[in-house]
Amino acid sequence: RIMRPDDANIAGNVHGGTILKMIEEAGAIISTRHCNSQAGEPCVAALARVERTDFLSPMCIGEVANVSAEITYTSRHSVEVQVNVMSENILTGAKKVTNKATLWYVPLSLKNVNKVLEVPPIQYARKEQEDEGKKRYEEQKLDRLETKQRNGDVIFPVINPEPHTVGYSQSSLIHLVGPSDCTLLGFVHGGVTMKLMDEVAGIVAARHCKTNIVTASVDAINFHEKIKKGSVITVSGRMTFTSNKSMEIEVFVDADPFVDESRGRYRAVSAFFTYVSLSKEGKPLPVPQLLTETEEEKRRFEDGKGRYLQTKAKRQAQMQQAAQH
Amino acid sequence: RIMRPDDANIAGNVHGGTILKMIEEAGAIISTRHCNSQAGEPCVAALARVERTDFLSPMCIGEVANVSAEITYTSRHSVEVQVNVMSENILTGAKKVTNKATLWYVPLSLKNVNKVLEVPPIQYARKEQEDEGKKRYEEQKLDRLETKQRNGDVIFPVINPEPHTVGYSQSSLIHLVGPSDCTLLGFVHGGVTMKLMDEVAGIVAARHCKTNIVTASVDAINFHEKIKKGSVITVSGRMTFTSNKSMEIEVFVDADPFVDESRGRYRAVSAFFTYVSLSKEGKPLPVPQLLTETEEEKRRFEDGKGRYLQTKAKRQAQMQQAAQH
Amino acid sequence: RIMRPDDANIAGNVHGGTILKMIEEAGAIISTRHCNSQAGEPCVAALARVERTDFLSPMCIGEVANVSAEITYTSRHSVEVQVNVMSENILTGAKKVTNKATLWYVPLSLKNVNKVLEVPPIQYARKEQEDEGKKRYEEQKLDRLETKQRNGDVIFPVINPEPHTVGYSQSSLIHLVGPSDCTLLGFVHGGVTMKLMDEVAGIVAARHCKTNIVTASVDAINFHEKIKKGSVITVSGRMTFTSNKSMEIEVFVDADPFVDESRGRYRAVSAFFTYVSLSKEGKPLPVPQLLTETEEEKRRFEDGKGRYLQTKAKRQAQMQQAAQH
Repeated sequence: RIMRPDDANIAGNVHGGTILKMIEEAGAIISTRHCNSQAGEPCVAALARVERTDFLSPMCIGEVANVSAEITYTSRHSVEVQVNVMSENILTGAKKVTNKATLWYVPLSLKNVNKVLEVPPIQYARKEQEDEGKKRYEEQKLDRLETKQRNGDVIFPVINPEPHTVGYSQSSLIHLVGPSDCTLLGFVHGGVTMKLMDEVAGIVAARHCKTNIVTASVDAINFHEKIKKGSVITVSGRMTFTSNKSMEIEVFVDADPFVDESRGRYRAVSAFFTYVSLSKEGKPLPVPQLLTETEEEKRRFEDGKGRYLQTKAKRQAQMQQAAQH
Repeated sequence: RIMRPDDANIAGNVHGGTILKMIEEAGAIISTRHCNSQAGEPCVAALARVERTDFLSPMCIGEVANVSAEITYTSRHSVEVQVNVMSENILTGAKKVTNKATLWYVPLSLKNVNKVLEVPPIQYARKEQEDEGKKRYEEQKLDRLETKQRNGDVIFPVINPEPHTVGYSQSSLIHLVGPSDCTLLGFVHGGVTMKLMDEVAGIVAARHCKTNIVTASVDAINFHEKIKKGSVITVSGRMTFTSNKSMEIEVFVDADPFVDESRGRYRAVSAFFTYVSLSKEGKPLPVPQLLTETEEEKRRFEDGKGRYLQTKAKRQAQMQQAAQH
Repeated sequence: RIMRPDDANIAGNVHGGTILKMIEEAGAIISTRHCNSQAGEPCVAALARVERTDFLSPMCIGEVANVSAEITYTSRHSVEVQVNVMSENILTGAKKVTNKATLWYVPLSLKNVNKVLEVPPIQYARKEQEDEGKKRYEEQKLDRLETKQRNGDVIFPVINPEPHTVGYSQSSLIHLVGPSDCTLLGFVHGGVTMKLMDEVAGIVAARHCKTNIVTASVDAINFHEKIKKGSVITVSGRMTFTSNKSMEIEVFVDADPFVDESRGRYRAVSAFFTYVSLSKEGKPLPVPQLLTETEEEKRRFEDGKGRYLQTKAKRQAQMQQAAQH
């Protein structure tokens, strides 16, 4: 698909959210196809989780996005999909890897959306592939349980905030879920939710540093709760941490099925996005430090620093490993 | 929400219709939420009327639109919502008030769309607020009745019209109502209708003066008739009046539920839009005078002049009042 | 890409225009990529012509559209692309061929849009492929010249038309060309134009027979004139012919680059669309006969009948040929 002006920011960089949406659509297609490959109850694959995703190089208006997806592991009730995105400049022929993402889907029955069906197993070329997949499966399962606990936070508005404080850049948007946002089951596509989350995170980042910003990475996102057609989604973001050249933004998604009496507003998803600020030449710019005021903000800043250092250490370990080979 | 290239004209000014659509969405959400706040029949709030709205300053691509909504009055069967729109340049931090709009909603039962439900009353901080709200309620009710009468006019096409005549710039579009245009009840969102109306009015204005034009204000719009999913909407606009620096365009919306044999084409909405022409520096430009030919056109020109002078007088009175305080 | 409610009519059938748009995007990507495959002036491939296209089976909401494209011939200044569209029901795994389309593109210089560049030749597996391609090239060139002549017709409005007359169903829409409608060169994508044409043709067909209608085929379309960003497009359609179970609609596209003083309104494209009416079970329904009134209408009806009989004869010849093999 050719990237259009609406897919991008003013500087011409395609929004991370647009890319996440394409990734999720590819994942949903391949996993729904797989889960229906054996005769049985028809089902639709619903996104349960996206692993941490790095945006390796920016994509621009006029470039073509090539999205390819492959099923890499199946457990009894879930499918792991690896999606690769390449940006291709069809004028120069240059191709660059933009993303490699890993997504987990769960097949829900078309007749009864609360029923999770069984997944047909895939064949592995080598035994190790299955073992490694199983390890990834166990890890993500644990992480899913953890995030389910901590989902209770709320963003309060601040009157007349100072620049570079948390309150200054925090933002939220509401969106009424329309039919085109939804799967055949009548629930919001995970990709649509991620696109809205990236939009809010981008506004928070731009308000903080007042320059051109791009998505650098997204931490693992768990989709604990489905969001029904006709609901109102509130997406809120606040900055949690800044390093010299990056900003971490926490994003919450709350769903309010407000016509449906049986249920009040609930937290559907939360995630951390990392942004960098780019100069006109595409070089990373220094980021103003986040001013933390309350105890809570200081704690979150330290937590963010922890995640930042952990990611940095992991990346360095990978690079050393790669250098040794 | 960040304003994108598709939200704006070539000069980068966000279409008035895009803003009206955001306003209406915010109003629909807050009033639907309010009307469902007490146990009872679930309902969806349908737009009944938008009060006259001024576009105080243009919004541009890349700016963030901040929309806030508040319920200011409830009658037995209707809700008054005040919506404010601010444009924020997230690079400079500059904020400007773009619009203040007042909308009236009516709760329709989800089970039976022809049933208007009761609205839970709101609490007023001061008794005067309730009295003033009641006054506004009575006034709009009267105006609604009046416009219901005069809704019969049709736009006839003109062959080979001269520049600056009514026939030269008049325009119409048809639109097939899709699922995303509709509420849960299967009727077109008022905001979608207003966006189409602004689109036609803008084309009429641009055809007349062949420059960059922006919406300056919209007169009160009454939504007498619902429009069903699958209908074809015809939106037609014709210029009625020009002052030195503004153009008034009358817009009609006709709905044709053509698959539904029981009903023919009907007039759903009509309204007056005022446009100004802007130079590249954003200064208002003189507008070519409208050439009226028929008796009808001359009468409509005089009516438009009346509305123009009345608005001007009202604005001057407000300014004097403000200066005295 | 998964087909969404917005891509389809109320009966759930994806609009022919949506499919044409996907086809054209695939064609534009592959031919732009090919034309830039050798070092030289960068260029963008612009759609010059689409050959007659049949819609072999309907596509539905929730199905996945698989689009594949291949370059089948190159002349000095043009590229022939064959695009195949398959619909895949990812729940049942059923796949059906929806379309086979042939498109011609011309490479325009990115620096000077009026300069047509040379196309790098492709390699043919067999000499006959080149000869057949050359034959197709010559044929389309002739047809292009012919349609360039006959492009002058205008649709006049009719007051109070009788049901089933030409005037009763004729329709037109206007569209302001936005940034997302355009290529890197700032001209409207051929696919966007075809989608609007199909939208109008579909409304004409639905107004005539007041049932669920789907696109059955599109005659060859020639794109003689580019349409610039910021123009207003008027798309008008009128019925020209009905057989027992099909309707032929002629569609005109006029462009008005109204900010650009140097040029008035001009005819950009015209084409014939054929629609059929479907019952709830997807069976073709009889179509009310078109009532022709003027001499012109009768002549166009006979011309349409000629095209209809010619297509029918061709199809029968192909079937006999297929049976003999």
